[in-house]
Formats: sequence, C-alpha cells, structure tokens
Amino acid sequence: MRVGIISIGNELLNGRTVNSNASYIGGRLYNIGIVVEQVVTVRDDEDAIRRALQDALGRMEAVIVTGGLGPTHDDITKKVLADFFHSRLIFDEAVLQKVQERFRRRGMIMPETNRNQALFPEKAKKIDNPVGTAPGMHFEHEGKHIFVLPGVPKEMQEMIDSYVAPFLQKIAHMEPITVHFYRTTGVAESKLYQLCKELFDRYPEYEIAFLPKIAGVDIRIAEKPGGDSYEEFEKILYEKIGKYVFTKGDEELEAVVGRLLREQGLTISVAESCTGGLIQDRLTNVPGSSDYFLGGMVTYSNESKIKHLGVTKQSLEKYGAVSEAVAREMAAGVRKAMTTDIAISTTGIAGPSGATPEKPVGLIYIGIATTEKVTVRRFVLGVERLINKQQGAVAALELLRRELLGIS
Amino acid sequence: MRVGIISIGNELLNGRTVNSNASYIGGRLYNIGIVVEQVVTVRDDEDAIRRALQDALGRMEAVIVTGGLGPTHDDITKKVLADFFHSRLIFDEAVLQKVQERFRRRGMIMPETNRNQALFPEKAKKIDNPVGTAPGMHFEHEGKHIFVLPGVPKEMQEMIDSYVAPFLQKIAHMEPITVHFYRTTGVAESKLYQLCKELFDRYPEYEIAFLPKIAGVDIRIAEKPGGDSYEEFEKILYEKIGKYVFTKGDEELEAVVGRLLREQGLTISVAESCTGGLIQDRLTNVPGSSDYFLGGMVTYSNESKIKHLGVTKQSLEKYGAVSEAVAREMAAGVRKAMTTDIAISTTGIAGPSGATPEKPVGLIYIGIATTEKVTVRRFVLGVERLINKQQGAVAALELLRRELLGIS
Repeated sequence: MRVGIISIGNELLNGRTVNSNASYIGGRLYNIGIVVEQVVTVRDDEDAIRRALQDALGRMEAVIVTGGLGPTHDDITKKVLADFFHSRLIFDEAVLQKVQERFRRRGMIMPETNRNQALFPEKAKKIDNPVGTAPGMHFEHEGKHIFVLPGVPKEMQEMIDSYVAPFLQKIAHMEPITVHFYRTTGVAESKLYQLCKELFDRYPEYEIAFLPKIAGVDIRIAEKPGGDSYEEFEKILYEKIGKYVFTKGDEELEAVVGRLLREQGLTISVAESCTGGLIQDRLTNVPGSSDYFLGGMVTYSNESKIKHLGVTKQSLEKYGAVSEAVAREMAAGVRKAMTTDIAISTTGIAGPSGATPEKPVGLIYIGIATTEKVTVRRFVLGVERLINKQQGAVAALELLRRELLGIS
Repeated sequence: MRVGIISIGNELLNGRTVNSNASYIGGRLYNIGIVVEQVVTVRDDEDAIRRALQDALGRMEAVIVTGGLGPTHDDITKKVLADFFHSRLIFDEAVLQKVQERFRRRGMIMPETNRNQALFPEKAKKIDNPVGTAPGMHFEHEGKHIFVLPGVPKEMQEMIDSYVAPFLQKIAHMEPITVHFYRTTGVAESKLYQLCKELFDRYPEYEIAFLPKIAGVDIRIAEKPGGDSYEEFEKILYEKIGKYVFTKGDEELEAVVGRLLREQGLTISVAESCTGGLIQDRLTNVPGSSDYFLGGMVTYSNESKIKHLGVTKQSLEKYGAVSEAVAREMAAGVRKAMTTDIAISTTGIAGPSGATPEKPVGLIYIGIATTEKVTVRRFVLGVERLINKQQGAVAALELLRRELLGIS
C-alpha cells in the first residue's frame, strides 16, 4: 500500500518547527507494516497545497495531510481541500457547541473567527478529536483515501492511533507487525552488530534496527506476521548481548534502577563532582523516588569534599580530586552522611578546561559503596562537557544496576 | 529566489529520525531572506530521487539535497546524482587519503567499501568538509544550482553556513535580513503579546515571532534591509517587556547567571528538594562554573534537611517540609554549610503524589539567601513532574538573576 504525507505550514519551512509529526506518522505506519513513500512539506499556500495533493493522488493509495486547520487566517487547509474535492462547507452545530464550551469553561466569549472551526466539508467523514475541538476529515476520492488532521501533535497522534492506522491496516488486509524494543548501554553499536551478526543472518525474518543515542544503543526488532520462533530468537539474543540490555521496552535506566532498589528494599545516596547533580536529577525524575533516594551532595570544591564527605586532605594532595582514592572516599562518605544502604560517587574532568597530561578531558572515576565494599571504575569518555556529563551519569546508573543484579 | 530541499533516507520515513536537517536549512536561509518553498523527503531509491530532482528543477532556482552519501550500499545519492547530470565519477586521491588517515588514527585499516567515498563527479565543484571526510557537491545545470550535502548534521550545517548560504545570498543579490533574538522567562506568551501589540502594530516592518518553550518564551524579530530605527524600536520593547528578558542572543539562563556571579565576584551554593539536582546540573553545564559554584545538596528526606542544612524539627513539624519556613532555613543552611556568598533553595511537590488539600502538586517555595537577607517566593506550577522540575529550576535561576541585578 502506497502512502504519502503532506505537511502544511510556514513554520516547517522557516526553521521555527521541526517536522516531528511526519516522523510520528512514519513510525506508527511502519509498526503496522507500511513504509511511507514520501513526505512533502509545503507552505500555507493554496497553489502549493493543490499541487502537492494532485501529485500525491497520482501515485499514492492513501494521503495523510496535517496542519493548517486552526482558526486564524493562515489556516487555509480546510478550504483548499473542500474546493479540491468540490465539496461545500456546512455548519456543524455539534462542533460549534464544543468550541463555544471550551471558551466558556475559561470564562471567555468565543471570538467570531473561531466560528469557522465549525465548518465541515459535506463530503468528508468526521474523525473524532477527543483532545481538541476541530474534528479531522476523511475524504474518499476515486478509491483513494485522504485523511486531513490538525498539526497539533497531541490531536494528530490521537487520530492516527485511533482512526487512520487501524483503517489503513484493515483495508490493506495486513496483520500487524510485532515490534520488540530493547535498550542497551555500555557497548558500541559496532560491537553489538558484531555480536549479533550471525544471529541476524540466521533469522532474516526479523528486521533489526540499531538506534544509537548519546549514552547507549536502542534496538528495534520487527517481527513479520506468522513468525513463531521469537522466543527462541530472543533467548539466543540475550545469550549474546543480554548483559548490556538494561530493559526490554522503553523504560529509562533510572526507572529500572529505581524498581530494583524498591524491590530489594534498599536506600541510596549520591555524591557528584563532574556530573554536577545530573545523576540525582535523573534518579528523582522517577515518581516515588523519595522512597529510596534520601539525598546527596554536589561537591565541586575540595573544601566541600573534605567537610561534607570526609574525603582526606592526604588523598586530595597525593592523588588529586580526580582519582580512584577520592572517588572511593566520596562514595563511602556520602553513604555514611546520608545513612543509606548504597551510594554512588563521581569525580572527573568534564571539560573543556582542567585537563593535565595524565588526566585528559573525559576521565571519570565512578564509585559504588555498599555495606560490604567500595568499588571504583575508571572511564575515559569524550571531549564535550555536556555529553561527558550525560555519559558519566548513565555509566554510574548502569554500574549501580549491575551491582544490584550481581552482574559484573 | 525559489529554493527547495530534497531529504533522502529511509530512516526519515519510518520514524527512526526526525528531519531536523531540513529545519536547520530552513532557518538559516530564512535569516538571509529566503523562505524555502518545499521539502520533499524520499527513500534511498533511485526512481524516487530522480523524480524529486526532476520536479524540483522544474520549479526552483536552487535545490539542496541532503543524505545518502555514506559508504554503505544504501547510500546511492552520489551515483544517482552523477547519472542524472551525465557526469563520470572519478577517483579523488586527496579524499581517499583523508578517509584512510581517519581509519589509521584509530588504528584500523580502511575497509574496501570506504573507497567509494573517494569517488567524485567530474562535473561538480567540491564543497569542503572540515568536520568529516566526504566533500559536498555543487552542480550547475541550465543556470540552476544543486548542492548535495551529507546527512550527518554537523557536516551538513558546516557546509550550509560556510558555502551554500553565502553563495545563495551572493547570487540573489540580497542584503541579509537582520534577526534579533531575545529570551524571556516568567511571563506567558499571551501577556507578552498584549504588552507588545501596540508596538508591533506601529512597526509593521519588523516580523515578530514568539517561540514558547517549557519555561519561557523566546522572541525572534526579523528586520528587513533598510530599516533604520531599530534602536528606537528596541528601546520601547525593553520599556515594555525588558524585565522578563534574561538575554539578548541565545544564551542559556545558567550562563547569564554564571556571568553575573563571575562579574560580581560572588560564590553560590544550592539546596534542592523537589528540583532534585536539576539546578546544580544546569549551573554546572557552564564551562568554568567551578569558579563560582562551590557545591550543594539534594535533601530529599527530612533527616538530611535537619542534619546537613540545619533545618529545624519545629519548622518541619509545624509547617511541613514544603513551606516558606523550611525553604528559608534550607537557603540559609546551605549558604553556611558551603560557605558561599549566595544560596538558592527549593522545596515543593513535583507530583504526581504527595499533594494535600492545602498543598497541590506544582506548589514550590524558592529561597534566595544573601549576606543580608533570605527571601522566599511561592509559585504554583503545573501537574507534570518533569515539567515542574524544569520550571522550578528556571524560576530559581531567574530569581537569582533578578537578585544579582537588583530587579524585583
């Protein structure tokens, strides 16, 4: 089934807005086995919209149009589409009431310009809009289907998921593709590929995509209908790369770690230097994290490391603030100061300044203190400050995950 | 001048990658007075690329093509373009050496597949690639200009900024549009509009765009060539909304605050509860922030507030952890514990749980302690945890900025 997208809006062409709607639609259709043929992005301009429609209808079986449905004078999509399909616009009382109600609730009177949101092309079917006011439109024209959706992401997404994707899936007589999603960290894309290549060659019915992120690689595996050996495939996959997989699904690493801490009834504290608070920020992104995260410190100065974490002057003088010894004392120190079961520490050189011949930008020591021991790991990350902070925070959370699961 | 973009790549159509390259190019050309006519996104497919090119050359004076220039078998852009313009591909020794050198530096031998990166169409001019290996191509065909650039954002951006944009500006004989950029926080878009409406009506030669973000509204004002009263315009703009503008330009708020601290020779510390480390994370995103940020605490538990910040048991019992009294004691306490000139504190209910009838989700108290006094401000933000953390952190940094500048 050939499907095209037409994205309408000046803001998509002058750099104000990235066209994430097209990407969302592409991903959703891909999940049901449809690869979008093309996306054409045009201005809020009658000729441009008509030309894009004409071209798309010549080659596609379905066209999804987004944007330009708002109440302002720029928003001409509805009028252009109605003209194109020779359809009158008629007033829809139900929509008008919905729009008026929205204004009433905010204690406002509906401006006259919003009346045109209640105009609807006679020839189109309505697509329900549970999160906004104006419905979407579904035209059928010479056996082809044209869906016209708002540009507001939430409204568009809702209509794709509850109407457009199921409709296309039905008329294409397609069974849905099952998509499996895994998240890894601490391993390069090329290494993952090398570890899995033989497996992927053996199972060509699974389409594998590696999606590298700043601090890890996500893996998307699309299983075509009729495959029945996924369990076996997954078993071998885990044998090969299981230790790098921190979750099956799309959970964040801090949520995985939080779940483990909660299950094991453990509390945690953190002492950060080079990561500057980011580990604690991520831990506290998880709702309910106050149950296991009691607190922590960001000790940027040597004085604060000594005073609040009990780091020794000797270690600072002998090894420097960025050293295994100091990471060790920081982890043990914050664990004691915050009275927790486990503690994490980081000390490193985020850059761009602060490097020495022996200690390059990107050097980081990460400590994990438990009731039994303190272990410290050394990494050399990259040269960009913000990326080093992010990669350092993820490396620390991953070490914690492995500690909690007893994997080395 | 009519300019179109052709974006090439399967990943742009199946939801893996958002087409941010097209948005970047659109923004850069807009800044020199060119509004991109259309963006056509197609697969790595010969027919699709040829059709898009044919169509674009029929209506545009210049076409910018991105993507599909890598070394793998999917990357067919160069071959298709060379065929399209009836140009032979010839080996370029200089490029080959550059590619080989890249592999050598990493201690690897160049795979044979990478040789084709050194093939270059005879009829094209080279566009230098200072951040990668393969150069871009500039074809001239029947008076039209076709630029072919890599899909890697950094390489593409570099070529747009140093070659494509200046070239188009020159052949279009255009004076650049001057774009002024301001960033605000603590004020709604509708309020800004209301404050500025009369000014904007009076100066229609300035094109104003409000760009709302999670914790503030950016303002972009495009000044057409020949305008000579911008100074006067800006003076009135500042009279109306100056107190909300934290920077002219695109600096982050933490960089502005860092500059002020440095200029005034002041040090700072932070005690966070509901913002969970985010304020410290943002402060330490700024290179060199260790000069003024000495450290801080994330005190999630009551015990840590008492032990490390000297918050009193009485205040916690009488007013609760989320209260003006506790915010006050936290700010004063961390200022003392870290021995700094200034200190910030936050305590609030990020949500989704923890609310009471008197203390809703989104409630936050922010304290600022100086040598002279502690002031506390109360805000009620939204209902989403991550957004509350972000808005809370920005509100705290903005209060600090105003304190440092003596604006209320």
